[in-house]
Amino acid sequence: MKNLSIDAERLWDSLMEMGKIGETPAGGSRRLALSREDGEARDLFVRWAEDAGCTITVDRVGNIFARRQGADDSLAPVCIGSHLDTVPTGGKFDGVFGVMAGLEVLRTLNDADVQTRTPVEVIVWTNEEGARYSPVTLGSLAFIGEHSVEYALDRVDVDGISVREALADIGYDGPAEVGNRPIGAYFEAHNEQGPVLEEHGETIAVVTGSYSSRYFVITVQGMAAHVGPTPMARRKDAMVGAARAVLEINRVGNAYGEDGRSNAPHIEVYPNVRGVIPDEVRVSCDLRHREQATIDEMEADLRSALADLEEELGMGFVLESYFAWGPMSFDPELSELLRNTAQDLGYAHRDLQIIAGHDAVPMTEITQSGLILIPSRDGLSHNETEYSAPEHVAAGANVLLHAALAKAEIVAGAD
Amino acid sequence: MKNLSIDAERLWDSLMEMGKIGETPAGGSRRLALSREDGEARDLFVRWAEDAGCTITVDRVGNIFARRQGADDSLAPVCIGSHLDTVPTGGKFDGVFGVMAGLEVLRTLNDADVQTRTPVEVIVWTNEEGARYSPVTLGSLAFIGEHSVEYALDRVDVDGISVREALADIGYDGPAEVGNRPIGAYFEAHNEQGPVLEEHGETIAVVTGSYSSRYFVITVQGMAAHVGPTPMARRKDAMVGAARAVLEINRVGNAYGEDGRSNAPHIEVYPNVRGVIPDEVRVSCDLRHREQATIDEMEADLRSALADLEEELGMGFVLESYFAWGPMSFDPELSELLRNTAQDLGYAHRDLQIIAGHDAVPMTEITQSGLILIPSRDGLSHNETEYSAPEHVAAGANVLLHAALAKAEIVAGAD
Repeated sequence: MKNLSIDAERLWDSLMEMGKIGETPAGGSRRLALSREDGEARDLFVRWAEDAGCTITVDRVGNIFARRQGADDSLAPVCIGSHLDTVPTGGKFDGVFGVMAGLEVLRTLNDADVQTRTPVEVIVWTNEEGARYSPVTLGSLAFIGEHSVEYALDRVDVDGISVREALADIGYDGPAEVGNRPIGAYFEAHNEQGPVLEEHGETIAVVTGSYSSRYFVITVQGMAAHVGPTPMARRKDAMVGAARAVLEINRVGNAYGEDGRSNAPHIEVYPNVRGVIPDEVRVSCDLRHREQATIDEMEADLRSALADLEEELGMGFVLESYFAWGPMSFDPELSELLRNTAQDLGYAHRDLQIIAGHDAVPMTEITQSGLILIPSRDGLSHNETEYSAPEHVAAGANVLLHAALAKAEIVAGAD
Repeated sequence: MKNLSIDAERLWDSLMEMGKIGETPAGGSRRLALSREDGEARDLFVRWAEDAGCTITVDRVGNIFARRQGADDSLAPVCIGSHLDTVPTGGKFDGVFGVMAGLEVLRTLNDADVQTRTPVEVIVWTNEEGARYSPVTLGSLAFIGEHSVEYALDRVDVDGISVREALADIGYDGPAEVGNRPIGAYFEAHNEQGPVLEEHGETIAVVTGSYSSRYFVITVQGMAAHVGPTPMARRKDAMVGAARAVLEINRVGNAYGEDGRSNAPHIEVYPNVRGVIPDEVRVSCDLRHREQATIDEMEADLRSALADLEEELGMGFVLESYFAWGPMSFDPELSELLRNTAQDLGYAHRDLQIIAGHDAVPMTEITQSGLILIPSRDGLSHNETEYSAPEHVAAGANVLLHAALAKAEIVAGAD
């Protein structure tokens, strides 16, 4: 059984074929959640999963469950999941690797005629990226009951199109109830999206927990006026206020050691026309740190800096918290299993804390959940040139295969 | 003839009625160029002008000419013009005041049975604001031949709708040739949009010239990456670069005395989603100053600051110039006429340089052009609370009436 191995070439080919859906000129993928391209990618996944003998279930928020029967099909399935949606200029690995690795595990079990005690399922979660619909990991959060189904369906994109409409448009407004679906254990494999594995020449990271992440919107309230005749001294230019806020956010991310992170990746300017001094600017931002005590300090630091700006510039700076996750820990038993599996397979590995959200995080709330990472070239992700080497892709899938089998238990075949 | 006066109440009522088209909850107007609301405002103007006995001509870029016949209709008309479009959250005076004042002049001439030697025309220019379509004063620039008609018709808004399509949608894709229309003299009245008249308790500003204005787009080139795992030290965050650029722009506007201005009112962020460090940010900006030598210094200062940022941050900062106007002078004879008219009518007045663009600026290229301003409360414009007092509105229209009559010459009536 230890000799069982996934088909590295088939996995790579599937990954590359999936990456052609929404392929960008720079070699990345653009498959915004529930877009036409996401629909095509889902269709391809479903076809491949059906070809592998799976039964397909789609729930009301569009999560897809591809099930390979177990010897005792009444047992909770061992699941492997990730997502097919991307950021607007995403790469070919983020999310897709995890889904294709799960599918490759099923294909490998088929080839070797392995029968498992429990069913094995591959899950495609809806809107993991949070790029089209906020918040991130929308499908898995709805699945665990963190958000209501109605809340998830009511999210709208920048054009006012709801999740409900978008799901119907691509035919993934499934009939199945969201959640209340037993899961025996959940595994996910992902690219690292950071530089640590590459720097250390290692193949697998076993994720033992996450940083703390806090998401805010800062509303800078200025005063609209004409860009020309209004004297500089009379202005309350919300763009200037927002620029100061962005630099404070960036300062806070840099001020608390190498485990600190901060971002201001999204901005809305009103009215954002060339003749009018901006009235209001909304800056979405986040703070991240490994240590809970430190992120408290970082938030206090940012709040204090915004209060100082309010005083100095005479404009409003309102900080609203809208989402937070972490710190959290992954299941120690599954982490140990993944660590031992990587070790047995001869892959150099390390433990790591994640700084990015993944569907494996919400899953810790309802089941044993384990997450591994493979190296990203130059530590780069959410970039069209994102790349993980074929041998690392294969290694990640092999770890998934053996860890999943340890939980699902072989009852026939491949001895 | 000196006793001839416009009907202040009728003018105010027309101004307020026009302001109801696209009225905003905060009491301003939203009539983006060639929108449905702009179309309604144009229809109302045309109806009023026809009621006043005018013949209407619409040219291919949607400029409207409402003509009151002269005793010798072969002479070039004396024209009064401005615009009916607004910024997204505009006021009830900017542009509309000038058009309504022109119409009130015609109504006054009708009431007094005045016949003028030359025709008198009121002109409504297309897309003065530049808020929906860039650049500003698109209709008058096309009229004077600064832009080709095709260039003007091909401009697109943020939704990709062209001027050509938008004109057809509201029925203002007129048949008349653009330009090649003789104009004997051009007058415009506008609200000041700055604080000078109010501060000095004066009623009329005679505009003798303009500041120099230069418009640029700064493209900040960073590198897309994941907002979480990417270490702060490895990032090239274009939002941080843009924030630094905005503050440099603002610094330059403040550094050259009280005649300096600068703005960064419009920004485009790519991809502008919460999970991705921005790859590219485009900041539209402008610099303005009264002195030509000083604006050269300001531009050099900004260019040097951007080069320093490029060096410091390791990101690209490319400054592209896309539009410039001024310094320019208005016709000294018309300025003297407007000054004397204000004086004769007993209005406290001063000479002023404009810092905002108006259709009267392009018109200086092809005819005698004169511009007056009336006070803006708190110096505020491009703001829904923009306000000019009824007595100032009336005063501006009276100056227009008598200055226009001086050029158009009374041949019968009102002696």
